[in-house]
Amino acid sequence: MLTAHIIKTIQSLDKKKYRQKYNLFLVEGNKIIKELPNSDYEIENLYSIDPENITFKMHEIEKILPNDLKKISFLQHPKDSVAVCKIPENKYLENVSIQLILDGIQDPGNLGTIIRLADWFGIEQIICSNDTVDVYNPKVIQATMGSFLRVNVFYTNLEEYLKEYKHPIFGTDMNGENIYETNFPEQFSLVFGNEGNGLRPSTEDLISTIITIPRFGNSQSTESLNVSMSAGIILGEIFSKK
Amino acid sequence: MLTAHIIKTIQSLDKKKYRQKYNLFLVEGNKIIKELPNSDYEIENLYSIDPENITFKMHEIEKILPNDLKKISFLQHPKDSVAVCKIPENKYLENVSIQLILDGIQDPGNLGTIIRLADWFGIEQIICSNDTVDVYNPKVIQATMGSFLRVNVFYTNLEEYLKEYKHPIFGTDMNGENIYETNFPEQFSLVFGNEGNGLRPSTEDLISTIITIPRFGNSQSTESLNVSMSAGIILGEIFSKK
Repeated sequence: MLTAHIIKTIQSLDKKKYRQKYNLFLVEGNKIIKELPNSDYEIENLYSIDPENITFKMHEIEKILPNDLKKISFLQHPKDSVAVCKIPENKYLENVSIQLILDGIQDPGNLGTIIRLADWFGIEQIICSNDTVDVYNPKVIQATMGSFLRVNVFYTNLEEYLKEYKHPIFGTDMNGENIYETNFPEQFSLVFGNEGNGLRPSTEDLISTIITIPRFGNSQSTESLNVSMSAGIILGEIFSKK
Repeated sequence: MLTAHIIKTIQSLDKKKYRQKYNLFLVEGNKIIKELPNSDYEIENLYSIDPENITFKMHEIEKILPNDLKKISFLQHPKDSVAVCKIPENKYLENVSIQLILDGIQDPGNLGTIIRLADWFGIEQIICSNDTVDVYNPKVIQATMGSFLRVNVFYTNLEEYLKEYKHPIFGTDMNGENIYETNFPEQFSLVFGNEGNGLRPSTEDLISTIITIPRFGNSQSTESLNVSMSAGIILGEIFSKK
């Protein structure tokens, strides 16, 4: 039963501190929830205003009122159902051919969009610095549109990780090599820096090649592209050569 | 002087109806405001909490209090200054080599991001169907990061426009020709459809070639890319051949 205590616990999952304390996060909407049984994620509780509409057999479903759904949803316009899921352990996939590395990305929308992009291009893993926004942040999960189910996100000490990494490391910044003239090998990592500050010097030191999307417009006033847009354009270019 | 009446008028500029009534829109932040004198835009009023900090000579500046700035700003975190600008006439640039066409884009963030992209790639014009979100919507202006100053946005009856247009028209959708195998001519238009519904049938009928970004991931559950991300990847590919 959805007691006041449970509602309060679910509401607290907005914050990383409480997600870690309870080891839980939320997945909202039947469309994504129905993919959970085919993934590594485990459902702890499943609440729905319309359980009859969930035709797939999975976890026991608790029927709740729209008013209660509003209380436990992090969406402005709550959907049909909310699944409380267990946070799996932080695991690393060995030997991924192309992987993305995020060095201090802060905006949940950017991380979510980059996970969605990775999924589109079949990239299996994203390595994040420990200070990158948490993948289980509800805004990140929402922005992935379900792609978090198919892309492994691993948090680590980036400097130590990069020192041990055996393949070429490309980093994106202004004033690097033109992406259209870059030859990408079979196996490599592609690093994106923080939205405001770019790559950390300690990260940049470990990068083999800095690459840049050339600007075709003439105005020096033009702002550099947003990090997720840059990721999309660069991945588009890498995969054009596949 | 910033009277209660003027505050109310400025606040109403959040709505297209009132922007059209007064023929005014807002530009926020010194960084973008200082580019206005080099553009076609005319400032009607300029308010700042820190006029001494505006070193560039332009319009007379009215000093206001932070509390008043909060009232007239559309930003969650208001910047230093607000310029009330005249909406210029809806003008068309003839003979642009590559232009984008938007068929019913609704999300202000998407339009703003696409204008910013166009600016990056030096695309001078975007043609919008009359039902596309208004470029002078404060959220659009903000998302362009100043790029609205350098890209002409023209609203028109799209069906009539496309019937008269003399160059190839590419449209983006699922199940089209692979963008990596498409030859783009010197002069053409590239059409993007509405976020939810894609291209209107009446628009699709007038398109020469439908193109698609191939999906490299294997999952059929992967959502199609957001329209502004698609625009970025396709423009990246078109300009890789320049």
